[in-house]
Amino acid sequence: MLSLAEIAQRTHGRVIGDELICISGVGSLANARCGDLTYLSNQRYRSQLQDTHASAVLLSEQNVANCPIPAIVVGNPQLAFAKIAREFDKRQRVAKGIDPTARIDSSAQLGKDLRLGPNVIVGSQCEIGDGVELSANVSIGAHSSVGDHTSVRENVVVYHDVQIGSHCTIHANTSIGADGFGITADDEGQLQEIPQVGRVRIGDDVLVGAGVTIDRGTIDDTVIHDNVKIDDQVHIAHNCVVGAHSILCGRSSLAGSVTLGEYCVLAGGVGIAGEGPVSIAGGVEIGAMTFVSRDITEPGRYSGATLHTDNRTWRRNVLRLNELDSMAKRLRHVENMLQKRERIDADPSSAE
Amino acid sequence: MLSLAEIAQRTHGRVIGDELICISGVGSLANARCGDLTYLSNQRYRSQLQDTHASAVLLSEQNVANCPIPAIVVGNPQLAFAKIAREFDKRQRVAKGIDPTARIDSSAQLGKDLRLGPNVIVGSQCEIGDGVELSANVSIGAHSSVGDHTSVRENVVVYHDVQIGSHCTIHANTSIGADGFGITADDEGQLQEIPQVGRVRIGDDVLVGAGVTIDRGTIDDTVIHDNVKIDDQVHIAHNCVVGAHSILCGRSSLAGSVTLGEYCVLAGGVGIAGEGPVSIAGGVEIGAMTFVSRDITEPGRYSGATLHTDNRTWRRNVLRLNELDSMAKRLRHVENMLQKRERIDADPSSAE
Amino acid sequence: MLSLAEIAQRTHGRVIGDELICISGVGSLANARCGDLTYLSNQRYRSQLQDTHASAVLLSEQNVANCPIPAIVVGNPQLAFAKIAREFDKRQRVAKGIDPTARIDSSAQLGKDLRLGPNVIVGSQCEIGDGVELSANVSIGAHSSVGDHTSVRENVVVYHDVQIGSHCTIHANTSIGADGFGITADDEGQLQEIPQVGRVRIGDDVLVGAGVTIDRGTIDDTVIHDNVKIDDQVHIAHNCVVGAHSILCGRSSLAGSVTLGEYCVLAGGVGIAGEGPVSIAGGVEIGAMTFVSRDITEPGRYSGATLHTDNRTWRRNVLRLNELDSMAKRLRHVENMLQKRERIDADPSSAE
Repeated sequence: MLSLAEIAQRTHGRVIGDELICISGVGSLANARCGDLTYLSNQRYRSQLQDTHASAVLLSEQNVANCPIPAIVVGNPQLAFAKIAREFDKRQRVAKGIDPTARIDSSAQLGKDLRLGPNVIVGSQCEIGDGVELSANVSIGAHSSVGDHTSVRENVVVYHDVQIGSHCTIHANTSIGADGFGITADDEGQLQEIPQVGRVRIGDDVLVGAGVTIDRGTIDDTVIHDNVKIDDQVHIAHNCVVGAHSILCGRSSLAGSVTLGEYCVLAGGVGIAGEGPVSIAGGVEIGAMTFVSRDITEPGRYSGATLHTDNRTWRRNVLRLNELDSMAKRLRHVENMLQKRERIDADPSSAE
Repeated sequence: MLSLAEIAQRTHGRVIGDELICISGVGSLANARCGDLTYLSNQRYRSQLQDTHASAVLLSEQNVANCPIPAIVVGNPQLAFAKIAREFDKRQRVAKGIDPTARIDSSAQLGKDLRLGPNVIVGSQCEIGDGVELSANVSIGAHSSVGDHTSVRENVVVYHDVQIGSHCTIHANTSIGADGFGITADDEGQLQEIPQVGRVRIGDDVLVGAGVTIDRGTIDDTVIHDNVKIDDQVHIAHNCVVGAHSILCGRSSLAGSVTLGEYCVLAGGVGIAGEGPVSIAGGVEIGAMTFVSRDITEPGRYSGATLHTDNRTWRRNVLRLNELDSMAKRLRHVENMLQKRERIDADPSSAE
Repeated sequence: MLSLAEIAQRTHGRVIGDELICISGVGSLANARCGDLTYLSNQRYRSQLQDTHASAVLLSEQNVANCPIPAIVVGNPQLAFAKIAREFDKRQRVAKGIDPTARIDSSAQLGKDLRLGPNVIVGSQCEIGDGVELSANVSIGAHSSVGDHTSVRENVVVYHDVQIGSHCTIHANTSIGADGFGITADDEGQLQEIPQVGRVRIGDDVLVGAGVTIDRGTIDDTVIHDNVKIDDQVHIAHNCVVGAHSILCGRSSLAGSVTLGEYCVLAGGVGIAGEGPVSIAGGVEIGAMTFVSRDITEPGRYSGATLHTDNRTWRRNVLRLNELDSMAKRLRHVENMLQKRERIDADPSSAE
């Protein structure tokens, strides 16, 4: 329970209405119930403010007029809401201490205030920081480290020689440090795997979603810099480097040796894969399901996916794509013929 | 072992041949062995009927003529086969009871006839229905529920506050209820995660494949309605709503706040992601690997992916895509020039 | 520690320099340290040879001249390096023996020299070969087999009736043998799952990455032949057959009943899915993110994805795709008009 006064203090906001009102949960404008705090950050939802059952709303100065319920005025309502919603997150953390079924190698260095759940495995020479939470069935390979206050959720597999920074969250069923996919044929044409002896290094404040795969480097390391945010089912191959503050949305994927600058945004399903290493400048945003096969050297927004249409229109047009080059040449030819005619009309003696 | 008479009874079919023949397994037309039941539902495979080693076949009236083996005539051979094949499924269910290594919180409400395997975890305040099967290493977070006769396979992670209906199947290594991917930048440009305090609600008779991720809602819930069928490696982001009886094939994915109507079919690799919420009408079928970025309001079939061709043809044409707008304008210009000429030819005085 | 003489012997190479130099690790040309062995296989990195801190380099005859450090001359430097790097792989294998928490059914047949980790589950009638490594939380369903010296990493789920060959590696969080996605509607329009009673059969020397899903066949089997290499997050549906020595890069996916020939290469994100079964000839290479919807009968290279461009160019051109058919027809019309004019000019009496 938080009073509006307390909420205003934490969000550097100003209360309009009764400061003593108590908030016991959070809800959206449309579905909030009595006792809930809600927020308005997008004008699209302005009209819902009139009918909300929330007990109070976080909003910006421009929306104060005609607000029918108590409000807290802040600069960034979404950010303020994020701060307060954390208080009402009902997730129960793993119990304090080390579960009796956890298997901690005696050579591992353990911080204090740990929360290690059932069947957790910590390998030899690992370093586990203060306040770390490892949920059930997490295994941390030998020589790996997990920084202070990082939370690793159920069934995550961290291979050996992987460094994870502090204040990170790694969601369920994610694999970090599996072998990069390096294959070469031997003299008999039999495919051989190239040993992957590099590491994975992940910075601080990194979020990794569920079902993600981040492979170790072949010789050098795969590197995820500080404050990178990675959504579910993203795939990051060997020797990639992801710059700080970049966002990789669901199912985006980097082939081996892709370098992504700082503050990049990959929308869902983006794939970056070239013949050799590919380098993407900082500040690049790439639209959903775009295929990037070569370097991008300038910040900006890029896209490449085709759009849906009804099946009949699609079928009629998609097959024409393979005529495009011929069409371009024929169009040029037609233009030339017409130009010639215009010339002849203007000067009949120019005809050969 | 089932006799043809018994099979006919269960499938409301009619036996042609010896009713006492016993069936001990199932097989395809091409690979069935003596003792197997097979089926014919697609005319494409009609010719295989002559050479099959099966002991009997399920087929429709139209294929009875010249059938060389005993047959059971039914309205829908595939559906009838599905019913009978279930009898020969060799999967061993988790042993009855609660494995001594399972960790069940004392506040959880447990139904009867449970099958809880090794290292299963059931959190506080959970409700587990009758006949539920939780395979090894499944963990169910606090305040979650699993309906009657639902089967959850190995290493599935169900987070807290997730509701799963009855008669569902959830395959291995799937994660349900991980945080939605809500990111906002603070005043210093540092990316912050928006707490995800909504739930996931899954209806009855839902199938969820292996390696799937279904995220919890930000404030409101992510909802999967009854009888939805979800294939492997599908990703469903926060606040999506999937209508009843919809089918999502392998690797299809919904970005945050996508609403899918009833009886939709997403083929493999489809991605739906817009700038804001996207809404798809009921009865919409979307072709493989199509990108959908805006609402679809009418039922019907839609596609958008480009097709493969040999590399040389592809390379020659794909680069022309960026000339398309210019080509369209130039073509219009050429048409106008020609029209003008026709006009002049018809009426020379119209020339300026 | 290996001397250059020993390395030369194992790689059938020739030492240039001091044969007694000892190698204690491996590194890339750019980042190797004193004591490391490196290699040069791509002329792109030739210039890095001058500045490397490596103590020796594997290279081919053509690069011997001016090599500033001791060298071992071999035919295929990458392959030779792969062989030696294996010696320096720091992964710790699961401890020898059977962990006391492993649950091995008494009917399972076990080979010798096993390494079965914590909480491993081996079902009834399983066959586990010699030297097999099953890492923590791996479960092997009833009637399944794992061949000699195969290594299965943490949290992998192998369902029942799955055969895995010898000398395979299966990475973390992968699921093999989940039900194929076969759905049919009953007479009331309710979707029903078709029982999947086929198996998965995987050959020898197969690599399977992390987070992969390989589904069991509906009636016949899903088959992965010898020496296939599968990257992370690949999806292989029911009844697929993957020919020997094929390579499936990250996030590529095969819908049900796709047959892939021998020595195929699918780049990242490729999707193969047709209305019915699709068959791809041996020796086919498919470019990244290409959608293949029909048979490919000739070896060669194929592609189909569109390329990225800046958002403004993309937006201007992508919408024109739906005019392509109309443009083609109009272009043809314009050509016809011009031809008619040429004919009339050449022979004015031909005008009607």
